[in-house]
Amino acid sequence: PLTVDWDAGHYDTGGYEHYLLKEISEQPETVARTLRGRIDDRFHVAHLGGLNLTPHETRAFRRVKIIGCGSAYYSGQIGAQMIEELARIPADAEPASEFRYRNPVVEHDTLYVAVSQSGETYDTLAAVQELKRKGGRVLGIVNTVGSAIARECDGGIYLHAGPEVSVASTKAFTSTAVAFALLALHFGRVHDLSPADGRRICEGLRRLPDQIEEILKQGPQIADLARRYVGHSSIMFVGRVRGYPVAREGAQKLKEISYIHAEAYPASELKHGPLALIGPEMPTVAIVPDDELLDKNLTTLGEIKARGGQVLMVGHRTPDPKLAEDVIVVPKNETELDPILLTIPLQLFAYHAAVALGRDVDKPRNLAKSVTVE
Amino acid sequence: PLTVDWDAGHYDTGGYEHYLLKEISEQPETVARTLRGRIDDRFHVAHLGGLNLTPHETRAFRRVKIIGCGSAYYSGQIGAQMIEELARIPADAEPASEFRYRNPVVEHDTLYVAVSQSGETYDTLAAVQELKRKGGRVLGIVNTVGSAIARECDGGIYLHAGPEVSVASTKAFTSTAVAFALLALHFGRVHDLSPADGRRICEGLRRLPDQIEEILKQGPQIADLARRYVGHSSIMFVGRVRGYPVAREGAQKLKEISYIHAEAYPASELKHGPLALIGPEMPTVAIVPDDELLDKNLTTLGEIKARGGQVLMVGHRTPDPKLAEDVIVVPKNETELDPILLTIPLQLFAYHAAVALGRDVDKPRNLAKSVTVE
Repeated sequence: PLTVDWDAGHYDTGGYEHYLLKEISEQPETVARTLRGRIDDRFHVAHLGGLNLTPHETRAFRRVKIIGCGSAYYSGQIGAQMIEELARIPADAEPASEFRYRNPVVEHDTLYVAVSQSGETYDTLAAVQELKRKGGRVLGIVNTVGSAIARECDGGIYLHAGPEVSVASTKAFTSTAVAFALLALHFGRVHDLSPADGRRICEGLRRLPDQIEEILKQGPQIADLARRYVGHSSIMFVGRVRGYPVAREGAQKLKEISYIHAEAYPASELKHGPLALIGPEMPTVAIVPDDELLDKNLTTLGEIKARGGQVLMVGHRTPDPKLAEDVIVVPKNETELDPILLTIPLQLFAYHAAVALGRDVDKPRNLAKSVTVE
Repeated sequence: PLTVDWDAGHYDTGGYEHYLLKEISEQPETVARTLRGRIDDRFHVAHLGGLNLTPHETRAFRRVKIIGCGSAYYSGQIGAQMIEELARIPADAEPASEFRYRNPVVEHDTLYVAVSQSGETYDTLAAVQELKRKGGRVLGIVNTVGSAIARECDGGIYLHAGPEVSVASTKAFTSTAVAFALLALHFGRVHDLSPADGRRICEGLRRLPDQIEEILKQGPQIADLARRYVGHSSIMFVGRVRGYPVAREGAQKLKEISYIHAEAYPASELKHGPLALIGPEMPTVAIVPDDELLDKNLTTLGEIKARGGQVLMVGHRTPDPKLAEDVIVVPKNETELDPILLTIPLQLFAYHAAVALGRDVDKPRNLAKSVTVE
């Protein structure tokens, strides 16, 4: 297979042991760059000049469909939730390759959004070209300026996260989620999101860099935790609604770099099958934000504990110790923005698990940074 | 947790060792019952009187959203693909609990379809009630006549598959997929599906019972195969487009009753993460129908083999032996209907794996037949 050669030798790890840890650690700065100049305090809206959409055109879209591969797809799931929640436009995400091969119905009143860090992901690019050919309107959320996907799209948002060298995406994932928050704010304020709610989201976005800094300070404790979990060959990740794509991305990171069989499931679907796997030998990482679903999530933890399962909870507070052996507490932001922060400790968890297992962290086996083949 | 008490003692296993094997074996008959009286050879359409929808109303729907839990959700994914393919109405499926808790936008021109074997699944019922409260039009695809979901819906299709006793769904799953094929045919023939294509689908549906019988005859060989795979603690299932929900249902069956950590992934997404897991210790079950994606799927098999992964291929022909150690060949039907048949050998595979591991096949640990709690 052909790969885009990101020549890692041209960059340096800036004193960190791996590019991955460097890129995780850069996130307060890279998120600030994604936000820079894009928050308008007068109208509490997002400035996204590159969208090339008038407010009139924006109102005409009845649906948003997000496509991407791997972590880009999972960040798209976070984005879909934000758009539906803030703008009340039905939105969903789908793997680009599934989308393009199923001969989808392309609709004139659906806005398509393609996500790719490199801007060269083959399946995503081919999906964009198919959409354009059928008259679909496509925005790109891309890190690499001037890349193929950026050039094909009708408009979009650049991440400005800087080059990502490590194969597993971290800072690009986070910046993509931030870009989706800006897009959701923009769509929301074109539709029915009030100025007060717009202000609330703007203020939440501004708090992100400092809050990421706070999470990074927990690195040593998360490393200790990770070392205690690496003896397991399988780990379940669960979350509900906003927490589910976080669980998916957390499982993906762990899979990619530690080779532990991590699988993500919607928490409520556990009872419909996967609960049969749960026991002392398979621990669960549960994403439990302080949102309207807190009680439901705590009930799920109780079900896991009743089957003898070990639980690592990632959320905003320390629960009853009977419900979770281990907890990572993450700073609270606005409910809609919480997924952005909840993924950060899972990056550190996967990183330290991979280090503990002696994996080649920056170049995991079998994977390429940018998949430029089908 | 409360459970609906299906009192298994009131039924008998009819000479089979387990209810599960009995229910798998009944499928030629149960599929015939789902089809009975519902195929119209004059206009090559489906007779579905219970839908309570005029052709005029049917044309007004711009989208179909299917909700369900567990295997009902996966059969909904098969259904969504059939509807979009045959009727060119955008369709997708979502877990009922995720749907109801994310405060979805309910649209007047979306047709909602709720799927539940028991008709009592709590999350699905609550989603139906929420939809009705918001003025959504909901059809039910349900096995149990007069159940709560059947009563709440505006219309629907009964499976007539008879009582399903074993916790893991098999015959109800298959009959649901058949019901979706009828629904897709119906929608297709209201829209642009030609009489010739309608006839092709009708004829394909009629072939299903005999073809299932043919698959069941392979029971002993599938049992041998399953015994050779049970030494693995993790197994990957992959498929593309029509094959992906088949992979999901296959992995779900294996998880539920054998407690092997089976995970399903879209084949094209392997390169974006899970390929790191693939090696001699983790085999892959690949769904490879003879459709327009055959070459892509064979390329994926090559990638798995290049990483030393063992492959069990489920498809319509024996490939190059370099691409798969093991093959289960399934009779070919019309491309749109193939997923219905491709799941049957995976039921047998999971059953024989569970038997080989000495599991309580009909009552797997931690699971209830009908989840009537949140």
